[in-house]
Amino acid sequence: MTARKIRLGAAAIVGVALLARAAHAQATAANPPVDLSLNLAWVLVGGFLVMFMQLGFAMVETGFTRSKNAVNTMAMNLIIYPIGVIGFWLVGYAFMMGGVHMWPSIMNAPGAHRELKIAIGGHEWGILGWSKFALLNVGHDPMSLAMFLFAVVFMDTAATIPTGAMAERWKFSAFVVYGFFMSMFLYPLYGNWVWGGGWLSQLGVNLGLGHGHVDFAGSSVVHMTGGVAGLAGAIILGPRIGKFRRDGAIGALPGHNLPMAISGTLILAFGWFGFNAGSTLAATDPRIGLIAANTMIASSGGALAALFYLWHRYNKPDIAIACNGLLGGLVAITAPCAFVTPVTALFIGVLAGLLVVATVIELEQRFRIDDPVGAIAVHGACGVWGALALGIFADGSYGEGWNGVAGPVRGVLYGDPGQLVAQIIGVAVNAIVVFGLAWIFFSIVERTIGNRVLVEVEFTGLDALEMGSDAYPHV
Amino acid sequence: MTARKIRLGAAAIVGVALLARAAHAQATAANPPVDLSLNLAWVLVGGFLVMFMQLGFAMVETGFTRSKNAVNTMAMNLIIYPIGVIGFWLVGYAFMMGGVHMWPSIMNAPGAHRELKIAIGGHEWGILGWSKFALLNVGHDPMSLAMFLFAVVFMDTAATIPTGAMAERWKFSAFVVYGFFMSMFLYPLYGNWVWGGGWLSQLGVNLGLGHGHVDFAGSSVVHMTGGVAGLAGAIILGPRIGKFRRDGAIGALPGHNLPMAISGTLILAFGWFGFNAGSTLAATDPRIGLIAANTMIASSGGALAALFYLWHRYNKPDIAIACNGLLGGLVAITAPCAFVTPVTALFIGVLAGLLVVATVIELEQRFRIDDPVGAIAVHGACGVWGALALGIFADGSYGEGWNGVAGPVRGVLYGDPGQLVAQIIGVAVNAIVVFGLAWIFFSIVERTIGNRVLVEVEFTGLDALEMGSDAYPHV
Amino acid sequence: MTARKIRLGAAAIVGVALLARAAHAQATAANPPVDLSLNLAWVLVGGFLVMFMQLGFAMVETGFTRSKNAVNTMAMNLIIYPIGVIGFWLVGYAFMMGGVHMWPSIMNAPGAHRELKIAIGGHEWGILGWSKFALLNVGHDPMSLAMFLFAVVFMDTAATIPTGAMAERWKFSAFVVYGFFMSMFLYPLYGNWVWGGGWLSQLGVNLGLGHGHVDFAGSSVVHMTGGVAGLAGAIILGPRIGKFRRDGAIGALPGHNLPMAISGTLILAFGWFGFNAGSTLAATDPRIGLIAANTMIASSGGALAALFYLWHRYNKPDIAIACNGLLGGLVAITAPCAFVTPVTALFIGVLAGLLVVATVIELEQRFRIDDPVGAIAVHGACGVWGALALGIFADGSYGEGWNGVAGPVRGVLYGDPGQLVAQIIGVAVNAIVVFGLAWIFFSIVERTIGNRVLVEVEFTGLDALEMGSDAYPHV
Repeated sequence: MTARKIRLGAAAIVGVALLARAAHAQATAANPPVDLSLNLAWVLVGGFLVMFMQLGFAMVETGFTRSKNAVNTMAMNLIIYPIGVIGFWLVGYAFMMGGVHMWPSIMNAPGAHRELKIAIGGHEWGILGWSKFALLNVGHDPMSLAMFLFAVVFMDTAATIPTGAMAERWKFSAFVVYGFFMSMFLYPLYGNWVWGGGWLSQLGVNLGLGHGHVDFAGSSVVHMTGGVAGLAGAIILGPRIGKFRRDGAIGALPGHNLPMAISGTLILAFGWFGFNAGSTLAATDPRIGLIAANTMIASSGGALAALFYLWHRYNKPDIAIACNGLLGGLVAITAPCAFVTPVTALFIGVLAGLLVVATVIELEQRFRIDDPVGAIAVHGACGVWGALALGIFADGSYGEGWNGVAGPVRGVLYGDPGQLVAQIIGVAVNAIVVFGLAWIFFSIVERTIGNRVLVEVEFTGLDALEMGSDAYPHV
Repeated sequence: MTARKIRLGAAAIVGVALLARAAHAQATAANPPVDLSLNLAWVLVGGFLVMFMQLGFAMVETGFTRSKNAVNTMAMNLIIYPIGVIGFWLVGYAFMMGGVHMWPSIMNAPGAHRELKIAIGGHEWGILGWSKFALLNVGHDPMSLAMFLFAVVFMDTAATIPTGAMAERWKFSAFVVYGFFMSMFLYPLYGNWVWGGGWLSQLGVNLGLGHGHVDFAGSSVVHMTGGVAGLAGAIILGPRIGKFRRDGAIGALPGHNLPMAISGTLILAFGWFGFNAGSTLAATDPRIGLIAANTMIASSGGALAALFYLWHRYNKPDIAIACNGLLGGLVAITAPCAFVTPVTALFIGVLAGLLVVATVIELEQRFRIDDPVGAIAVHGACGVWGALALGIFADGSYGEGWNGVAGPVRGVLYGDPGQLVAQIIGVAVNAIVVFGLAWIFFSIVERTIGNRVLVEVEFTGLDALEMGSDAYPHV
Repeated sequence: MTARKIRLGAAAIVGVALLARAAHAQATAANPPVDLSLNLAWVLVGGFLVMFMQLGFAMVETGFTRSKNAVNTMAMNLIIYPIGVIGFWLVGYAFMMGGVHMWPSIMNAPGAHRELKIAIGGHEWGILGWSKFALLNVGHDPMSLAMFLFAVVFMDTAATIPTGAMAERWKFSAFVVYGFFMSMFLYPLYGNWVWGGGWLSQLGVNLGLGHGHVDFAGSSVVHMTGGVAGLAGAIILGPRIGKFRRDGAIGALPGHNLPMAISGTLILAFGWFGFNAGSTLAATDPRIGLIAANTMIASSGGALAALFYLWHRYNKPDIAIACNGLLGGLVAITAPCAFVTPVTALFIGVLAGLLVVATVIELEQRFRIDDPVGAIAVHGACGVWGALALGIFADGSYGEGWNGVAGPVRGVLYGDPGQLVAQIIGVAVNAIVVFGLAWIFFSIVERTIGNRVLVEVEFTGLDALEMGSDAYPHV
């Protein structure tokens, strides 16, 4: 039956005899079942949307920074994409996903999978993937290649987050080195542990802690990783000149183009549908309806909570914080989006919006950490909240057999305290390992090429002296 | 057979044993038939594209307004999105679509449907939906959730239109109240009558007027509603200071960023493909090919008609009006896009382009109504024209059984004058009810919190005094 | 079986009885097989993404030009879209694709196909298509209409390229005439020869040169055509005032908004996935995975090669050239994307990035041709390279039966020197015919309405005197 179906399909796309692409008919005689083709298309379109988020990040960060650094800020968000693609392709993907195969081979056999493991307490724990370097043993396998594309844009999302927290003072050469470090090693390491079959995903199978650390689309894997790395970088770089004055006053240093930042926020909200709904890796998984609706509702809750709270407090509707509240809602729903109902999604989003406000204020006023765009609050704090929210609210309607553990995923409110423990462990490990490795990396850079531009570069602007460009020469 | 097919599909996406998402295979064992999955994906992707139109509106409106109000204008276009999502989710969707179920439940039973009805002349007429408040009885049903997502972005399109007509003088708090009114009540009411099984859709079944009021993707339901509400608001607000001078002269008050407005136009043209082609709710409906081509051709006709007409008249190619002509073509083809051939689509678009020019001039010079971005001309006038064009040109090749009436949809030129009558009734009801309710709403606001900012706020700019922000602090 | 499947599908989307769109069930009773529906959706979504590239071009070109010409530059990129749609619809599509039918009719019979041919050396060679004028004999056939949509956005990509090379000095009326010439005749002519069954595609069948000229998604058909036409136009227009000084110095004339140009680059990289992966015309062709991954990797190679090379040479990271390097990588991979592995894609992209740098420098310094945005280097030079790269590197894993020749497509490195010959012939023909016809066209315009604005218009800016607009009145 399947054979006949394929024959019909193939015959149907034959055109006239002497046709530019008549060959297509034969070429596609090996078509996969149509549901696999649909899922392949779904993952690709989702990946395209996530790639488009690079523009959203570029506009949010550049809009929130000063015009003398506009080229530099946007350049980092542009260049992280090719750096990330090459670095992740060479080794990052191998480290992260080398131990698993997400989809079946449909055209030719993919290479073997290999995961480095260590044995502790009678269990083998995955530490790092070790196959598919440069996709060499993948051949033309379309599923593996689509999976790579989808994985690399997630990595690039994580990698672009620190460019916001560290904006307006980061040496471009140091940024380039960071880009390779992040894409080749730091992101893949934690990514392997949660999504690549590594030890955090085994907490359920090996120790009975729920389904192990579960992160549907990346609250911890992508956003917290980016936020935490950005936190380490922002601390090591130190604040921008003029941010924290000697008399204790805090300088405003407003961004140069708020409409650009708002536009970027809308682009992110658009691309995020690919981020979350694409993460089923299957359009045949009908859960995509709930995921997309939850994504929308949580972001709305985050935006309105931040807007109304600050409006009430300062008597002005602060649109910049509403943007960050919206993004915070998106970050927080990213882990639990497939496991909760819209009412819960709204609650998660509202809390995320308030958390963004609180974190921005605390970081600045208490910790005196300078994050020009609020990236640590949005991605770091809300990433933590999203990962924990899954452990609290997952309602047992989804995730049957996730990470090899029987039954659906349940948070503590639905009867599985072990799941929350696994979530807490995952978050704590991220905070310790990602922060620690990022700190070590930035410290090494500090002692070699240096992380921060010279004072005169910062005063004049990175565009003129670091990039040799001017963002708006004729205006 | 279907069962076996599903089994194959499920087996095919099983990965290796100890895989992060091995559970997926089981979780998706309940996969729906692949054509339903394709349609679910189609509706979601269409909805994402429509959501992205928010950025198009934001850029068109902000580009066409002054820099001192840039944050305010863009903020309204941003914030209408979360307000709309929450308001529509709480009650708007229930009012609009509570009486129908567009798609089958595929995962679990959706709640009951309920439509408030009144009996007149031996018929029951639907007045308002009354189920699915906060989607509470929908559960995890993916089709209902996707339908909500698709419906809410259409509503947000309607809701964002008045922010253009009322720009540069609207109090932000009054706008917020309006946002909830529009998303919770005004849009859902008329929407129920046409798309939710309400009385305008019953004109065919009950009175024999064609298929009742037919609007494929929203010329009347979305665009005319937005344009008419914006007209009421613009009248009540009154013109901007300096627009209509005492000596009768008309001030130009040019927008601050024409490239931004042009960019927004292209974003709208992009997203509109989701608007129109997504409205089949099914990629399995091959009519999507015609719909997309018609959308493109009508917009092109509108752009060129407006451009060449004014170029001929004033000896300069006016790109701002070409943008509005393009958008007018899109608005006008939205209702009839599935029912006409490309030649007719071109004609509808060309007339829409000219109609935009005429309406802009008439509104300004004869009625002295100040619409900074031309929203009333584009969405109101062309919305009317689109709804009527369907009643004239629908060619009987599509719409079999639409609104429960046997046979395809035919306009008066193809033998069904009753269809045109139904279209006229729908348009007239929109003009009366939407305008009337919007008028009442704005009047109540006028007597309470007030619609318009103070003169000094308008002079200085809404950004500084209303929003506490500056769009471009460093330029 | 198929029948039963369709029945199930139809039944599944029936809603409640008195439902706005209950008719859909019947209307879609004629649903095509689901794999065809998936492919229809794939081509449409791909086409939407390519259409969105218009905004990318608009932003890149406008960002790289001066603010006094911002409206003019962006207006050309906007208006080429409706001009192209109308011109291509009227006759261009007929000339290009009138001789073939890419997909089967699924709803109604499409009209006959007709290709004008001449007989030389015992073979009939296709010269020009001759059916489907204004899509009149296509009726409502969805596949033909989707194919038109997909074809027209490719044409618009080619047509918009010269607006960059000829920016800041091109008379708007002359541009409009060019728009019709390009969409109605020049692009369709070469397009017919490669993609419409014309003689370049027959080089394999008739003369045994590989599979004839093969261009998967348009390195030669789209990009080289645009670049070569732009080269002819740029030469005839001459350089901008101040570009080449009497003392031999070269003026910089920097663009006015580098963040805009960077943003446009990211939009192009996003839309390009539709360009390349959409060109399978089928999501059921699993090759889309490789195509998308190759597209990403080649663009990354191009960006980094250009960035690092110039950084090394001038000690500053030049982001403008990195943008053009990224775009050059995209152009170069467009022809071979389906036929090579990622490693080869990286190599093709890297070389494209370096080629962009070299061409930009050579054109300016040796040939003293003024191309404000680098369009000739990016689209012309890398278009040549992409077409040749296919003839060198195609690895024999794809393209079985392409252009009616048995076996897969192989480059010279994989055993088929004839393929490289066919690629060289295609490129040479493009260079001669497209350049020659463009030259003749621009020469005729030069002697009639003139191509170039007056000196005072160029000094003051095309916005003020040619368009009657000001891009940024209030900044």
